[in-house]
Amino acid sequence: MPQFLTHTDPDFETRFTALLSAKREDSVDVDDAVAAIIADVRQRGDAAVIELTSKFDRLDLTPDTLAISADEVDAEIAKVSDADRAALEMAAERIRAYHLRQLPKDESWSDDTGATLGWRWTPVSAAGLYVPGGLASYPSSVLMNAVPAKVAGVGRLAITVPTPDGIINPLVLLAARISGVDEIYRIGGAQAVAALAYGTQTIPAVDKITGPGNAFVAAAKRRVFGKVGIDMIAGPSEILVIADKHNNPAWIATDLLSQAEHDESAQSLLITDDAAFGQAVADEVEAQLKTLERTAIATPSWRDYGAIIVVKDLDQAAELSDRIAPEHLELCVEDVDALAAKITHAGAIFLGQWTPEAIGDYIGGPNHVLPTARSARFSSGLSVMDFVKRTTLAKMTPAALRAIGPNAVRLATSESLQAHGLSVQARLDHLNEPQPE
Amino acid sequence: MPQFLTHTDPDFETRFTALLSAKREDSVDVDDAVAAIIADVRQRGDAAVIELTSKFDRLDLTPDTLAISADEVDAEIAKVSDADRAALEMAAERIRAYHLRQLPKDESWSDDTGATLGWRWTPVSAAGLYVPGGLASYPSSVLMNAVPAKVAGVGRLAITVPTPDGIINPLVLLAARISGVDEIYRIGGAQAVAALAYGTQTIPAVDKITGPGNAFVAAAKRRVFGKVGIDMIAGPSEILVIADKHNNPAWIATDLLSQAEHDESAQSLLITDDAAFGQAVADEVEAQLKTLERTAIATPSWRDYGAIIVVKDLDQAAELSDRIAPEHLELCVEDVDALAAKITHAGAIFLGQWTPEAIGDYIGGPNHVLPTARSARFSSGLSVMDFVKRTTLAKMTPAALRAIGPNAVRLATSESLQAHGLSVQARLDHLNEPQPE
Repeated sequence: MPQFLTHTDPDFETRFTALLSAKREDSVDVDDAVAAIIADVRQRGDAAVIELTSKFDRLDLTPDTLAISADEVDAEIAKVSDADRAALEMAAERIRAYHLRQLPKDESWSDDTGATLGWRWTPVSAAGLYVPGGLASYPSSVLMNAVPAKVAGVGRLAITVPTPDGIINPLVLLAARISGVDEIYRIGGAQAVAALAYGTQTIPAVDKITGPGNAFVAAAKRRVFGKVGIDMIAGPSEILVIADKHNNPAWIATDLLSQAEHDESAQSLLITDDAAFGQAVADEVEAQLKTLERTAIATPSWRDYGAIIVVKDLDQAAELSDRIAPEHLELCVEDVDALAAKITHAGAIFLGQWTPEAIGDYIGGPNHVLPTARSARFSSGLSVMDFVKRTTLAKMTPAALRAIGPNAVRLATSESLQAHGLSVQARLDHLNEPQPE
Repeated sequence: MPQFLTHTDPDFETRFTALLSAKREDSVDVDDAVAAIIADVRQRGDAAVIELTSKFDRLDLTPDTLAISADEVDAEIAKVSDADRAALEMAAERIRAYHLRQLPKDESWSDDTGATLGWRWTPVSAAGLYVPGGLASYPSSVLMNAVPAKVAGVGRLAITVPTPDGIINPLVLLAARISGVDEIYRIGGAQAVAALAYGTQTIPAVDKITGPGNAFVAAAKRRVFGKVGIDMIAGPSEILVIADKHNNPAWIATDLLSQAEHDESAQSLLITDDAAFGQAVADEVEAQLKTLERTAIATPSWRDYGAIIVVKDLDQAAELSDRIAPEHLELCVEDVDALAAKITHAGAIFLGQWTPEAIGDYIGGPNHVLPTARSARFSSGLSVMDFVKRTTLAKMTPAALRAIGPNAVRLATSESLQAHGLSVQARLDHLNEPQPE
């Protein structure tokens, strides 16, 4: 049974705080191993990647077979059913339509001194997307990473996906094909991250690496950060549902379980203003766990990290939600828009009973790569913005330099940066000389 | 003398590549010391911060004097001359005007299924800005960090600035006052970063930490990343000037020195299509170094990392510039807009001979916190976007769920996530039941 907290409990605040700070991740220390792998790949390139793939994935490759060829992709995706293909295509189309609206605009204007100011956006030239192998090899994650990159205009998009014992997931290849991925390498782990960051004889280096992975992949991404850009390091997934009594307890229970089934470290929370409804949901979860395919994962998640929190009213629900800063927030109350307006920190909000989180995971359009572990307080989900960068622009005229230059000289002087001041003063002196006609 | 590379040199490519990969930073390993400081501050709070400040800054504080009081700020800023105050105010106003245009817009729309989609932006609730003490205590950096935070709507903005031996820079306090900073603490080093990230009895924790600092500060920021957001970890500063022969060699030389005077590890590069002009600039730099106040810093920077690169034409200049991905790029050629259009990777571009980089450092309007060490390939300068985060929104209707739900179920099934599928299917089943009138 998960925790049941009620706002009138004398120890409510203590228990709620404990819930917030519960450590849900084992911090396996793989940093030394990862450092050695990266150094090896930097030094020996393909040879190191091939050896490590043989060791970890029991797969013997050559430089010629590091990449999955277009023919091989064709053969694999031919195995996908028409229905699965149609589903992936609809998802890609909806994700593309949503992310197209995120493309930022260039700006340029002149101010009252005559200076022209602005900025412009350009895509990252080359990006690499890490796709996990095995159980967590999700075609939906390929779409969620690759579609925004291609919408941003990334010229070269490479995927690495380990294929232990040579087993390939055709849906991953189809998702890559649909999203316009340019290269696919059958490698994984820290060696794949190192190959993307530093390049090998066969795999050209990229500028940015995104995508989820295990502890080795996460540690490798942290290490190559700076050499290349990376996306966030995601922690275990979370959902918070805020529901009033006008809901079907069975639906809310399934929504909670759809998070719990991801991972034993996942967290599913319900906040409700009705204790009886909270109990009904708890009972439903217990009942559904009996038949759930992934009950071995969902049961410990719900038992160890799940909670049902009974609040005085929806204002208190919003306040607690902001303290949780959930990755996923589902609002199932009568006036969802009013409640949503009270929320400040959340990765994604799913509004109303017809919007279970799973819609957002697959096909709604918004990205499913979202800030975990309370980081929605300061960060956002993956978007087109992760694959573009801004160059600021400034162009002075003689008049603009006369108007603002003297104050630049003064500030440079106050910071004892003489050459900074001189670089402006020399031009001002020239402008103040008598000019030839 | 710096390097002089000419495109016709047989070893041009080798030397240019070496220039790109020159390691300009000593990697001092302070990580263990920083880990200990952070652990101490987390455990003992104010007491640890006070002890460390006494040790490193020779300054004895109490919980009551950790913050610089408003009265003290008043007294210090009264010492600033009217001219310096006017310069800071003009800079703040121009930076504010520029960054106001960066405020992102919320979006909401309905698609053809009837689903409502969108996102909204909210500011980070509390941010901390690290300001170095001593020589590198720059009021301009306070403006460049604090103004965008306040434009974003950050509710609580705290500054930490070490005051070794009690010495305070009144211009830093004035810059903080002008930008609307809410709290100022006279602490620095890893202990200040730890206090901002985890909070102490006196200093409430923040959600995001930005600002430059030494190796201890950089290591501390890396360590607290995840608990809070951080901005980039900046490396030594760089400038690339692309200039044709229609320029005053003395001006270009000063522009190069305005970067070299920052730091012995700073890098100043000139690309020109005219060898004689390149030589004239080199001669001017040597001459100016003789009288420059900070010649002891600028001379080794120019000698060790400076370079003059002679190219065939401006197309080659643009191509090499993109390989350098400079933090600052100054374009002094006849058709600057045509050349700028060929550039893809740069933190900031300064267009034309009336726009020395120092204008951008202080008063132009764009931010001077920019990506270093070739990271302009994948990242952008500091902006309002660093102090806001996006929440995505999705709201299905029964019709929308009917239209897209079945494909969500199919994708969930293909990923073996049964509860995900059930959470959608249960609602679809309900919609497919005969409805009461």
